[in-house]
Amino acid sequence: MEAFDLVVIGGGAAGEKGAVQAAYFGKKVALVEKERVLGGAMVNTGTLPSKTLRETALALSGLRQRGLYGVDLTLGRQATVADFLHRLGVVIKEECARMAVNLQQHQVTCFHGTARFVDPHTISIATKDGETLIRAEHVLIATGSAPNRPSAFEFEQERIYDSDEIVTLAEIPKSLVIVGGGVVGSEYACLFAALGVQVTMIEAKSSLMGFLDAEILELLMTRMTSLGVGFRFMSQVASCQVSEKSVVLTLQNAEVMTADAVLVCAGRQACTAALNLEAAGLVAGKRGQLDVDPATFRTPVAHIAAVGDVIGFPALASTSMEQARVAVVHLFDLKYKMQIAPIFPYGIYTIPEVSMAGETEATLTEKKVDYVVGTAHFAVNARGLIIGEEGLLKLLFKRDDMSLLGVHCLGEGATELIHIGLMALMTKANADLFIHTCFNYPTLSEAYKYAAYDALGRRAKVSLA
Amino acid sequence: MEAFDLVVIGGGAAGEKGAVQAAYFGKKVALVEKERVLGGAMVNTGTLPSKTLRETALALSGLRQRGLYGVDLTLGRQATVADFLHRLGVVIKEECARMAVNLQQHQVTCFHGTARFVDPHTISIATKDGETLIRAEHVLIATGSAPNRPSAFEFEQERIYDSDEIVTLAEIPKSLVIVGGGVVGSEYACLFAALGVQVTMIEAKSSLMGFLDAEILELLMTRMTSLGVGFRFMSQVASCQVSEKSVVLTLQNAEVMTADAVLVCAGRQACTAALNLEAAGLVAGKRGQLDVDPATFRTPVAHIAAVGDVIGFPALASTSMEQARVAVVHLFDLKYKMQIAPIFPYGIYTIPEVSMAGETEATLTEKKVDYVVGTAHFAVNARGLIIGEEGLLKLLFKRDDMSLLGVHCLGEGATELIHIGLMALMTKANADLFIHTCFNYPTLSEAYKYAAYDALGRRAKVSLA
Repeated sequence: MEAFDLVVIGGGAAGEKGAVQAAYFGKKVALVEKERVLGGAMVNTGTLPSKTLRETALALSGLRQRGLYGVDLTLGRQATVADFLHRLGVVIKEECARMAVNLQQHQVTCFHGTARFVDPHTISIATKDGETLIRAEHVLIATGSAPNRPSAFEFEQERIYDSDEIVTLAEIPKSLVIVGGGVVGSEYACLFAALGVQVTMIEAKSSLMGFLDAEILELLMTRMTSLGVGFRFMSQVASCQVSEKSVVLTLQNAEVMTADAVLVCAGRQACTAALNLEAAGLVAGKRGQLDVDPATFRTPVAHIAAVGDVIGFPALASTSMEQARVAVVHLFDLKYKMQIAPIFPYGIYTIPEVSMAGETEATLTEKKVDYVVGTAHFAVNARGLIIGEEGLLKLLFKRDDMSLLGVHCLGEGATELIHIGLMALMTKANADLFIHTCFNYPTLSEAYKYAAYDALGRRAKVSLA
Repeated sequence: MEAFDLVVIGGGAAGEKGAVQAAYFGKKVALVEKERVLGGAMVNTGTLPSKTLRETALALSGLRQRGLYGVDLTLGRQATVADFLHRLGVVIKEECARMAVNLQQHQVTCFHGTARFVDPHTISIATKDGETLIRAEHVLIATGSAPNRPSAFEFEQERIYDSDEIVTLAEIPKSLVIVGGGVVGSEYACLFAALGVQVTMIEAKSSLMGFLDAEILELLMTRMTSLGVGFRFMSQVASCQVSEKSVVLTLQNAEVMTADAVLVCAGRQACTAALNLEAAGLVAGKRGQLDVDPATFRTPVAHIAAVGDVIGFPALASTSMEQARVAVVHLFDLKYKMQIAPIFPYGIYTIPEVSMAGETEATLTEKKVDYVVGTAHFAVNARGLIIGEEGLLKLLFKRDDMSLLGVHCLGEGATELIHIGLMALMTKANADLFIHTCFNYPTLSEAYKYAAYDALGRRAKVSLA
């Protein structure tokens, strides 16, 4: 039985980074992936596909340029599924190849099969050719998650998709109902609406993503409405009937809706069922998730750590990769990157993009922190004018010392622009940093300076009053 | 004679910011602009137009999407001048309106006429209706610059353009020779090449912009070559003959070139000739420039400051605005923003964009600083894959403490992305900041983390050797 210093279970975003980091520090590492290809949900069905399809939708629809020029740059014909999925295939293939090369260069041994604990240090890998046993001094569980499938929906039917299946759709529907107004549901709503699909979202709560800044969320919903997305809040599906030609949904308030297809985005379920956790001395919690120490990512069994979607919130590709790196440091006591960043950004690939880092007005109010707001609109920013972008940058500062507490951005490029504010948050900078920095002209980044001026102005007015 | 605390001469980027800052602090301010509209070269003929035309060229050519999708998204017909200039008119009008509103809101009195010193505190404003005299307690000269026009070229001919005139061209030429390989020449070369114009650049030195990082510059020239730009380095124009149908250029090495049009980008001349500087006790230097104290921007006459293109290097819209704000602080002893940032970024809107901040390998070698390089290619970055971007991020760190010294970026969005590194430079951060920060996935910004890892890896290898 071959023995490894570390066995990583799961070859997605987190698994790759954890395996490579341990290998970089001289450890003998194995990685077990149940699928034929690496990448996990991040590459194959989740993050990367949805962002690639979004770019394709923007390009095919001509939406990015519509109205800006004297000519119409739209495609002038219905986009086909082949158009839509063409780039996706290329991107997935290249990203999988990059991961395979990275693992190979770091001499990580890859196994393709289903991993199962035999005992806390022994792992069985089942393939169609039989079973292999390997010994693990340490284990990193990074098995990720799969879409949650509420029983009200017949997922075996062709017109009912979960968020993994939607990237393999057979034709672009004319109308689509999306059940669930979280990040995934909102992102798909925008990209299908951009392609001209009539999209309706059904959400049990009173708004989409409630963790967002309220002002940004309102702007987003206005933009989504003008893109053609309809909303049914405080609504739940009572029944769902699939026929040959359409899907008929009945809501709990008795409203009946008909659509070509339904996409169910009802959260995700941790992939731990096949691991035989009991043999390792572990127990899965709600939605199959594993409990870990939030500082070290160790499970209650000290030589086994777990990271990424399998431990739940925030379950982002970005945070999962960071968790994996930190978990490996603690498993091997490496004295390197000992903790994950105290602040992480959210990147939401709606149309337009939304991104945030740090506090919101709601969390600051709850914490009774006295703050001052500064905003800058891209519509009056020179770069914003050039590209026809009407987004918003909003900064939240602590009133007494004007230290930066939160950054909120809506607009194309928001997921990139947020990092300027994130650097300021990480270095505990205050408004002076933006006032003193010389920004390129014309750029959207300049908005940081004007938002800081705006905040200083509002603060001075209140002080004088 | 009406008296003002501050008279600003010139209503461009620097003039607006200087006037508004003084007004914000309660000063009575006048602004004199010789043109009918505000904005100066930044808005009307320089920075903003070239960047707007660049976006238009990218959109009309379909270049941004070419090859990425299963379908051809190019326009499929020759772009017309009307297509090309449509958006520019909109952008200029909106930016001028924004400036006028800003000045009005701050109760700055605007005069449209030609300003001339009568004595150090008296300024005459000549309009077609006569002359007005105003008294100035302090003066901020921000009169900007105009293209330098070497005598070898007959600019009164239709086919010979300087960089101000090119934005009003009557038709898109089939072939264009650009004389001068600086920032302006390189930017126009790219945008015309993107429109399908056959572009050749003539430059006296052995390369384009010599201040750039050598590796970035080489990548840029490769990309420009594949866009169809031709180069003649170590070359100068001996003669230029304009006929009805074309322009014939003879180089000093006797090569003869024929083109539809010639664009001369031979640097700029400060606009001080009309100011009657002697009456204020001032003397203009080379290219009409004014000498100032680099910390306060005061001229040798203490109540007169000068900022922007009129004082020469770096003559960027971004730095000019910052200079104006600092100059006003010193003129009125405001105890606010006392100095301009020690580091400013360069944003170069070639195709692809290039941006840099801080040191280059060349300047560090010259200063005998021991440094280590870290790079990350967008071709292996997930966001880069999605959008088909093949740029490069390059970071330079001080070897002993890994503090960041320089940031260099080539690729779409480089002028925005550079600010992430600029924040790190401004806060004197080191490589750990990038290692510890959680970046959104998939973003180009993530490249900062991988470039930092790359630098740490190279440093470790050398330490072991």
